[in-house]
Amino acid sequence: MSRYPKPMARLIEELTRLPGIGPKTAQRLAFFLINQSPAEVQALADSIVEAKKRTNYCSQCFHFTEEDPCPICSDPKRNQNFICVVEEPRDVIAMERTKSFEGIYHVLHGAISPLEGIGPDQLRIKELVARIGPDVQEVVLATDPNVEGEATAMYLARLLKPIGVKVTRMAHGMPVGSDLEYVDEVTLAKALEGRREL
Amino acid sequence: MSRYPKPMARLIEELTRLPGIGPKTAQRLAFFLINQSPAEVQALADSIVEAKKRTNYCSQCFHFTEEDPCPICSDPKRNQNFICVVEEPRDVIAMERTKSFEGIYHVLHGAISPLEGIGPDQLRIKELVARIGPDVQEVVLATDPNVEGEATAMYLARLLKPIGVKVTRMAHGMPVGSDLEYVDEVTLAKALEGRREL
Repeated sequence: MSRYPKPMARLIEELTRLPGIGPKTAQRLAFFLINQSPAEVQALADSIVEAKKRTNYCSQCFHFTEEDPCPICSDPKRNQNFICVVEEPRDVIAMERTKSFEGIYHVLHGAISPLEGIGPDQLRIKELVARIGPDVQEVVLATDPNVEGEATAMYLARLLKPIGVKVTRMAHGMPVGSDLEYVDEVTLAKALEGRREL
Repeated sequence: MSRYPKPMARLIEELTRLPGIGPKTAQRLAFFLINQSPAEVQALADSIVEAKKRTNYCSQCFHFTEEDPCPICSDPKRNQNFICVVEEPRDVIAMERTKSFEGIYHVLHGAISPLEGIGPDQLRIKELVARIGPDVQEVVLATDPNVEGEATAMYLARLLKPIGVKVTRMAHGMPVGSDLEYVDEVTLAKALEGRREL
């Protein structure tokens, strides 16, 4: 005899498939859901199906969007000739939160990682190259500051510079609000290297 | 302009309503779901609705069940005259995991807590009293070993003993596998008080 009624066991199993949700959390969520009203439970289920159904990728920048092209790509107030290259849609969200970038994006959907078998062909790189027309002024590479992100940035720089476009990389340095003594030595070295005159 | 496509914003909002799911986790889950196949997403949504629809409370013990009475209450191999009183369905699951309890359960769905405005009337207490027939040999109170659980156990003991039934309480003591030096002093005192001759 199973410890849970069958429909609950199935729900717990489905929830356990989600990232960061272990058996304990799945059980807690299942108990919570069973105690909700049928309408509330239906609203959650609908929002999951609807989000999947109605969210697509922008055919220009490959960010999540409901309309194609996405609101950023079709915004006349944004500089369409300044492209910020990021790994994932969540990076677009993070950049937008700063409210300080006026250009548009290109989402690679990953980074080059030979260990995980991800090469340039698995990423939206040829689509990026196709976007670099004569009007494009600058491409800023905002891939993650880790091994894969740096390798991807190096690869893209070598690929794009011959086309004749200005290619830049986000600055490395000390995070604002951090304590010098807790900043790792590689970041400190990069911060020193990139020091600016005041 | 919202940072997320509308259906995603709604999904993130729905997920944030779940216990222990903050905005960051909700965003991570939403991104994960969008990248799943439509069939996988539908399976999750269905399991949520189905679990809610097909899970009811046993009319005898008030544990979660698909059939009524629940498999435990209708199991002839279990001692129907030995009732273990717990606060929540998850406590039944925990007790069943020990495989050492042969009786049946009664789920109160909470504990007496004047601070949260929960009195005896909000719990399944009169249903418990109604179950205490002349055949019932023992009621073991397994409410949580905290203030509310102890108060509930005291209340139930005073209520049930006059009916003429044997009322017991789960033993307090040192958790198996723990280090004496890390056990809190109240538990240690209880363990000393309940010491047994070897």
